[in-house]
Amino acid sequence: MYSQHLADQAAELLARLRDRRPLVHHITNNVTVNDVANITLVIGALPVMAPSSQEAAEMAAHADTLVLNIGTPHADQLEAMVLAGLTANRRGKPIVMDPVGVGTTRLRTDGAKRLLSQVRLTVVRGNAGEIGRLAGLGGEVRGVESIVAPDAAGTTAQLAKDMGLIAAATGKRDHISGPGGGLVVDNGHPMLATVVGTGCMATAVIGCFVAVAGDPLVGTAAGLACFGLAGELAVAESSGPGSFKVGLFDRLYALTPEIVSHRARIAYAAEAPSGDEADVA
Amino acid sequence: MYSQHLADQAAELLARLRDRRPLVHHITNNVTVNDVANITLVIGALPVMAPSSQEAAEMAAHADTLVLNIGTPHADQLEAMVLAGLTANRRGKPIVMDPVGVGTTRLRTDGAKRLLSQVRLTVVRGNAGEIGRLAGLGGEVRGVESIVAPDAAGTTAQLAKDMGLIAAATGKRDHISGPGGGLVVDNGHPMLATVVGTGCMATAVIGCFVAVAGDPLVGTAAGLACFGLAGELAVAESSGPGSFKVGLFDRLYALTPEIVSHRARIAYAAEAPSGDEADVA
Amino acid sequence: MYSQHLADQAAELLARLRDRRPLVHHITNNVTVNDVANITLVIGALPVMAPSSQEAAEMAAHADTLVLNIGTPHADQLEAMVLAGLTANRRGKPIVMDPVGVGTTRLRTDGAKRLLSQVRLTVVRGNAGEIGRLAGLGGEVRGVESIVAPDAAGTTAQLAKDMGLIAAATGKRDHISGPGGGLVVDNGHPMLATVVGTGCMATAVIGCFVAVAGDPLVGTAAGLACFGLAGELAVAESSGPGSFKVGLFDRLYALTPEIVSHRARIAYAAEAPSGDEADVA
Repeated sequence: MYSQHLADQAAELLARLRDRRPLVHHITNNVTVNDVANITLVIGALPVMAPSSQEAAEMAAHADTLVLNIGTPHADQLEAMVLAGLTANRRGKPIVMDPVGVGTTRLRTDGAKRLLSQVRLTVVRGNAGEIGRLAGLGGEVRGVESIVAPDAAGTTAQLAKDMGLIAAATGKRDHISGPGGGLVVDNGHPMLATVVGTGCMATAVIGCFVAVAGDPLVGTAAGLACFGLAGELAVAESSGPGSFKVGLFDRLYALTPEIVSHRARIAYAAEAPSGDEADVA
Repeated sequence: MYSQHLADQAAELLARLRDRRPLVHHITNNVTVNDVANITLVIGALPVMAPSSQEAAEMAAHADTLVLNIGTPHADQLEAMVLAGLTANRRGKPIVMDPVGVGTTRLRTDGAKRLLSQVRLTVVRGNAGEIGRLAGLGGEVRGVESIVAPDAAGTTAQLAKDMGLIAAATGKRDHISGPGGGLVVDNGHPMLATVVGTGCMATAVIGCFVAVAGDPLVGTAAGLACFGLAGELAVAESSGPGSFKVGLFDRLYALTPEIVSHRARIAYAAEAPSGDEADVA
Repeated sequence: MYSQHLADQAAELLARLRDRRPLVHHITNNVTVNDVANITLVIGALPVMAPSSQEAAEMAAHADTLVLNIGTPHADQLEAMVLAGLTANRRGKPIVMDPVGVGTTRLRTDGAKRLLSQVRLTVVRGNAGEIGRLAGLGGEVRGVESIVAPDAAGTTAQLAKDMGLIAAATGKRDHISGPGGGLVVDNGHPMLATVVGTGCMATAVIGCFVAVAGDPLVGTAAGLACFGLAGELAVAESSGPGSFKVGLFDRLYALTPEIVSHRARIAYAAEAPSGDEADVA
């Protein structure tokens, strides 16, 4: 059963986000950096990208939230992530991390582990394979795509418990676990998998929401519901991945708290509809 | 009162640009680099991106104009900018600089100042906050967005006088000042602020125009009028930031000297309509 | 005379590509990296970008094909290309190289030559000027655009013979030469020249096809025919370069073996229609 209370909280967070316009500092890959900046702007926040270790900490000192994405990692960038992360930690600002392709190369695996150990992260979002690998429960990632993945409810719960953070594994159903329990989000559409970077964009949107959310578990679910909902709405006016991507930005920009309140499909994990009953797009 | 003479000059410069196809060398940030290349191509010039210090000077030796943008600065890139800039200076080719986020970190502030001191720049374009900071007259930049800005007519005039260059602060009204006086441009549309990189793109378009303009003051105004006009035209066929951006490229490509002559709103600063009377989109 | 047999082979390769979903490892420029990743995904393969020398070889050990593009070269990236290339060579996986802007700077020329000498390449694709320069037969490249080019049938044949690889020069007509003969492809549309990165995207699509093709000569022609065909189909729904680019992704995603079988225009070089008779868009 989807929770109207959670849908209403998501709607309220969207309104608050638009009102406060948090500054979101991204240190991210060079493949989807433009999409990540634009998704941040259209949801209602202010993006800033400052990837050099020479300025990352200084920029983090101005930002309301920090988003770290290891999609094209290199040494200086990982250094910048740690420096910015420590600054965000000192200032009590949330940090969201996307472990793109973790498990496929040592650089990515070590990079993700370094961030987990040296910085206090608020949220980690990946696909089911990535979260499985991070949780030490297996999973296979091919390039940056999840191929084999253990049960996402279990892996997110394990990672959340081990690391004391919010873990989110996105897919047909998004699983989100925190120390205090779990949520699922059933918004989204298969077309999202035809566009490069929708995972990175989802992480960015979570970054925007946790900047204004009291509870990062709810903030993460709200961000994923809004992003998935924009995907659902974009399908109607698309005729393929190119126009779908254009529509995704249009629809996220046009998203209102009213739409979110009516169409967000967020449930407490214990009460979530089973796969067969779920209204999964 | 808008000047028909200036609108006609802008139209003529667009025709000349399409005829000559200048080679525009960009050393730019990795967030909007694709947009900057595409905007250069659709206005009618040839873009080339060569960001490494190992080739920047050599590439600058072939180019008709150089565009420097510090949106994601790092040490080697700043070195490349100076090397390319010195080559352009020796060859008498114009240089346009975009001080993205100046004032927010030491790396950006020092980088912008280094370019101002070591290279003879032709045009500097930023938002009002960035130009205020560069002129030493205050202003606040949040991430890369202008939050508080002193009077742009004053800051551009000050920067132009201090540095002996053309200074342009873009916003609802664009202010352009040179040693010989000032112009304003009232083309544009608020939707431009919903797309990341429209500032960078405006700077790129200025780079294309000053490559073929006798007077860089007029070239800058012409570029900003054409870019803003494409934005105005793109609104009609857009349903949000995604489709607006697509339309921006379509409309700039389709822009004709006739449209520019009819719709460019450029005025001598002393004769410009006041804010209330101005036909500002 | 176009060959129905070759068109049918192209159709079959597209079906096989969609079935096998090869993992394509790109080490590419930062201007068109997002387009390259998306074009790989929409044609039916899985893209992964891993540009650091610290992980390039390791990622290449998982990939079915490697695509190297020197559009924004720097030292570490060239190192990564060699390391990944040697791994692909050891594993018997195909490598496609795009010598963007070769001949314009020493870094690009030396980089392309280093790849040619240290790695066994399967296919090299460039514009006619680039292929002319690589073949040592002249040609002029302005930025990254072919300005003066010797006869592409001759230069591709020369490069293919000298280096023992497939050489492809794309333009109004695409010329493809291998040790065993030559092919031409007449699919495509002039609008492709209005979008930055269509050359890079064509190279990426070739990379996808040679991953599943028995004969890389046919694989290269098949990739170019499919990409050009998507361009032809995208024109109908476009009103400029912005919407054309969107349509290019939509149409390539929607391309079916049936359409390819009916509309691919591939000919054996010896039997190719002359320029006047050719059905060149």
